[in-house]
Amino acid sequence: MDSSSRIVDDAVQALASFPGVGRRTALRMVIHLLRRPEGEVLQMAEALERLKKDLCICRECGNVSDQELCPICLNPARSRKELCVVEDFSDLMAIEATGQFRGIYHILGGLIAPVNGIGPDDLNIAPLLRRVQEGAFEEVILAFNATAEGDTTMFYLARKLRDSGARITNISRGINVGAELEYADEATLGRSILNRTEYAY
Amino acid sequence: MDSSSRIVDDAVQALASFPGVGRRTALRMVIHLLRRPEGEVLQMAEALERLKKDLCICRECGNVSDQELCPICLNPARSRKELCVVEDFSDLMAIEATGQFRGIYHILGGLIAPVNGIGPDDLNIAPLLRRVQEGAFEEVILAFNATAEGDTTMFYLARKLRDSGARITNISRGINVGAELEYADEATLGRSILNRTEYAY
Repeated sequence: MDSSSRIVDDAVQALASFPGVGRRTALRMVIHLLRRPEGEVLQMAEALERLKKDLCICRECGNVSDQELCPICLNPARSRKELCVVEDFSDLMAIEATGQFRGIYHILGGLIAPVNGIGPDDLNIAPLLRRVQEGAFEEVILAFNATAEGDTTMFYLARKLRDSGARITNISRGINVGAELEYADEATLGRSILNRTEYAY
Repeated sequence: MDSSSRIVDDAVQALASFPGVGRRTALRMVIHLLRRPEGEVLQMAEALERLKKDLCICRECGNVSDQELCPICLNPARSRKELCVVEDFSDLMAIEATGQFRGIYHILGGLIAPVNGIGPDDLNIAPLLRRVQEGAFEEVILAFNATAEGDTTMFYLARKLRDSGARITNISRGINVGAELEYADEATLGRSILNRTEYAY
């Protein structure tokens, strides 16, 4: 196969690096771009470039940000009483998308994983302990994956923060909204029975 | 929802413009990019930019190209006896991907579609007729979609090229390779019976 152009090939190869995007899909994406106005494509290229050139890390919470402090830390409408600790900015974005949390965040940059040699000192944990000590948080929410690493990190942090004066909570586990009981796995269903809550009526 | 950053938002919005890519997928793509090394992301941005800034149209066949003539027209190993006429560069790429054609191409830039007001003069047809007249093609292959527009364009070109001295052929229609007879639609199955070929053994 003669490629019609090295430029097209390079773009196909670049887009095929996205997870779940193969060469055929990447080629279709490139064909789409070839048909779009120049301005739109240049804008996309610039948007991707700025992800690396202009983004920095919020010095307060560890979130990605265009300035020294991220928009969440800067927002005066967000409560300084509730701190939500997450593994990564993708978890922060997922929680933000729910619209159910109006406090501020702390990003660890990973989870404690002894099997992979990741200990507390490799994570953004010391600044978290300092923040909780210096802040006046009423609640620290630990919002981690429901995995061994998430549980280990939760256990470690809950002990460290025990005497901070803040209530330590973690996000609930149970059957998915919309799911049917008979298809839920035993561990999840068991947990949802143990963690049953008072019916509000 | 507070966005974590305008830069992230812009990148999500740009990637969500790809067909079949929604905001959630675009966000996942951005998160992927945030985790990749800077060089890789800048290379992708540049590859997209060059699609618009450095690509031009081959003055011989109408294919996208980095130079005045595309790599296919420049390749001395490709036969100048067989010309394959296609609607668009995406069709050219699809045929190239099969590895079954070693001649050269001509791109119409569309198909005749009277309902949409697209006539022969709106397409790259006059240069095609000139090429066939001036060239020494033994065969002109019409490779269009199996649609009303494809058939109309094929009929028009076949009449125009009738006296060119070249054999006018079109790509075969029939049941897909790997398909089962009972699931083929009637028009396709009927065509595959009409166009049956001698069994080579």
